[in-house]
Amino acid sequence: MTQYEKAKKGLVTPEVEKVAGEEEIPLDTLKGYTLSGEVVILNNRRGDSLGIGKGLRVKVNANLGTSPEICDLEWEKKRLIAAVEAGADTIMDLSTAGDLDKTRKMFLENCSLPLGTVPVYQAAVESIQEEGSLAKMKPGKIFEVIEKHARDGVDFITVHCGINRKILEMFKNNKRLMYVVSRGGAFHVTWMVATGKENPLYENFDDLLDIARQYDIVLSLGDALRPGALRDSTDVLQIQELLTHGELVERAREKGVQVMVEGPGHVPLSHVEANVTMEKRICKGAPFYVLGPLVTDAALGYDHIACAIGGALACWKGADFLCYVTPGEHIRLPTPEDVKEGVIAARIAAHAGDLARGMKKAWALDNEISDKRNKREWESEIALSLCPEKARAMWEESRPLRPGICSMCGEYCSLKLVEDWLKNES
Amino acid sequence: MTQYEKAKKGLVTPEVEKVAGEEEIPLDTLKGYTLSGEVVILNNRRGDSLGIGKGLRVKVNANLGTSPEICDLEWEKKRLIAAVEAGADTIMDLSTAGDLDKTRKMFLENCSLPLGTVPVYQAAVESIQEEGSLAKMKPGKIFEVIEKHARDGVDFITVHCGINRKILEMFKNNKRLMYVVSRGGAFHVTWMVATGKENPLYENFDDLLDIARQYDIVLSLGDALRPGALRDSTDVLQIQELLTHGELVERAREKGVQVMVEGPGHVPLSHVEANVTMEKRICKGAPFYVLGPLVTDAALGYDHIACAIGGALACWKGADFLCYVTPGEHIRLPTPEDVKEGVIAARIAAHAGDLARGMKKAWALDNEISDKRNKREWESEIALSLCPEKARAMWEESRPLRPGICSMCGEYCSLKLVEDWLKNES
Repeated sequence: MTQYEKAKKGLVTPEVEKVAGEEEIPLDTLKGYTLSGEVVILNNRRGDSLGIGKGLRVKVNANLGTSPEICDLEWEKKRLIAAVEAGADTIMDLSTAGDLDKTRKMFLENCSLPLGTVPVYQAAVESIQEEGSLAKMKPGKIFEVIEKHARDGVDFITVHCGINRKILEMFKNNKRLMYVVSRGGAFHVTWMVATGKENPLYENFDDLLDIARQYDIVLSLGDALRPGALRDSTDVLQIQELLTHGELVERAREKGVQVMVEGPGHVPLSHVEANVTMEKRICKGAPFYVLGPLVTDAALGYDHIACAIGGALACWKGADFLCYVTPGEHIRLPTPEDVKEGVIAARIAAHAGDLARGMKKAWALDNEISDKRNKREWESEIALSLCPEKARAMWEESRPLRPGICSMCGEYCSLKLVEDWLKNES
Repeated sequence: MTQYEKAKKGLVTPEVEKVAGEEEIPLDTLKGYTLSGEVVILNNRRGDSLGIGKGLRVKVNANLGTSPEICDLEWEKKRLIAAVEAGADTIMDLSTAGDLDKTRKMFLENCSLPLGTVPVYQAAVESIQEEGSLAKMKPGKIFEVIEKHARDGVDFITVHCGINRKILEMFKNNKRLMYVVSRGGAFHVTWMVATGKENPLYENFDDLLDIARQYDIVLSLGDALRPGALRDSTDVLQIQELLTHGELVERAREKGVQVMVEGPGHVPLSHVEANVTMEKRICKGAPFYVLGPLVTDAALGYDHIACAIGGALACWKGADFLCYVTPGEHIRLPTPEDVKEGVIAARIAAHAGDLARGMKKAWALDNEISDKRNKREWESEIALSLCPEKARAMWEESRPLRPGICSMCGEYCSLKLVEDWLKNES
């Protein structure tokens, strides 16, 4: 039985108990959310299970994996270490080059965080290599790869089930600057155009559900049509795909399969709340897994900041899971340093969202840090912060001449001035 | 006559004409906003005048200046160059150590951007040095320093006029974690407590207005009581000071003096819009000059990102002017590198706000960049972006083996896959 089927039977699994304890949420509340599908449990067999969804801390994912340009397992390990150390909650292996099975196993063996994949990458890449073209990819190939990943112990998979022939037909009357910026989406669309056939993951969605149910793997409905430019944000094509996802969410739940939904992309700040509201409404509260949103197209080299802005607002309004974006987005496969900066920026956004939603654990942290700051207990303040490593390095580098202050205001520290006054008062 | 008095007389100054042209806003619209006080014109005598307020691009300020811990004019020059190169719109000299007149003149001589100062710093620091204690600062000293700064050609000054004895009295029944985190605010409060007297800038606000009118210097009403922790956000003390600022804005306008109002601080995302709405309502549309807002207390070492999140939302909702926060905030006087990162993060936030408000020039930029991205014209895309330097370095470092793609997806570039399909279609 899947976590979802157990919830339907009223059973409390050890995984749900663990998540409830860790997140300090009443067990009954969490049971309710797993039953309604508003929370999914990544049933991690290599480490701790992880809950994603309503009432829980927003989680952060880091995308890793080889590309045809850079294919080096040692480098992947370095990037993995960077992601884990920076505090990622999950990892996705998006490899498209080298021995894909071996790479996936490397991630599974070297990391106890929940792991996600996008199986169509492997299906497409191996079809191109073995059959000579993407058009020759056999529909069965995708399902074979999915089952292999599930068997290996992957915890969640992105599946582009919502891009179907009906939407493809709509391309003609709904112009876009960039039709498809999702790599998985591009594989599906290219294959559908070349073969004239329906998307196998849409056409045979029940087969996919059978596999997901058998291995209790969480499905993440990938948005092939996420906007790749602010200009394309929240357009007909994007929303049509979301409507399809809404139907698929219901079918998944009927079969006892846990499901979340992926979201944009390049979205102006003024569209972010609408995107979250729509996803929650159309997809019946399914956890929303957001890439970005990037609130400008112009922040090349600093896209992690564009993402933190959109991500924080999305989390406040109800997004549950943030996919990081690194400073190198749009330019290069992220370096270990890019990975670190990306994870931290996303964690700040997630935390800002948790605070705005009034989550007690988030407020307790900020209150404790502020308390240390007020007392000018620098070491404790730094140790509590989201990324002590960088803060500590800055502090060490610029340690002030006088004790009890920092080099910003020196002896004219407002906290110190006021402290002296308060001391005199009492 | 000040810019504001000329607006009242229906005159169109060359400065207003220049701002209208540069910002692509109809001259009559801008005239209306300068008359209503919703736009202030920094009448810069060393370079281009700058408009701040309604209908205009959000501007970014970089705080520089010596501290007792680091007092080195060559270092200040380096930080100034970093701020200007990163695209700051204004500079503030917040020096509190060394020869303050000489330092200010260095900034005026080496930078053609509008310059702001906080004169109470000099009044307080020199009183401590010359009289032996802050308590001995003479009220007249503050006004002397203000007039000196105005005479030197400073374009705007932060004046903490809203912190008065009435509010001080309210401290007793309105507990806070950190009463005063503003350095200028701390000087005023400490002086008021020690002397038992009223804040001279509040008591003799008309004298301040006379100086501001004579030199057409823009007043920026500093928030001595901005929250220094999320826990203190939007509390009674903060709002009471805002109410006082609202009264002072009216008095300034009556005297023909241009005025803007400063805002918080440490504010959860969920309070940001309320803060902007209140400032605009209570202060009759006066341009809102915001520090941050920082949406978490926990982002030590990455406070520029916490600030970008809050700043972007504030700008969308109507804030007009962002004071940068650097990665080193709360830890150290920012290094040149910190300055650069701070300015860029604030510019991304400002631009995201401009986009969300539907500003045409902002959208034109993003559309052009997206167009280049779609065509995979990397060099042009990078050149148009907000910080080409870093993006270019990343690109050069990771230039892919194959032309026309980046190292992220390599040959499986979604844009390329879809381009090939679109070519076959036509």
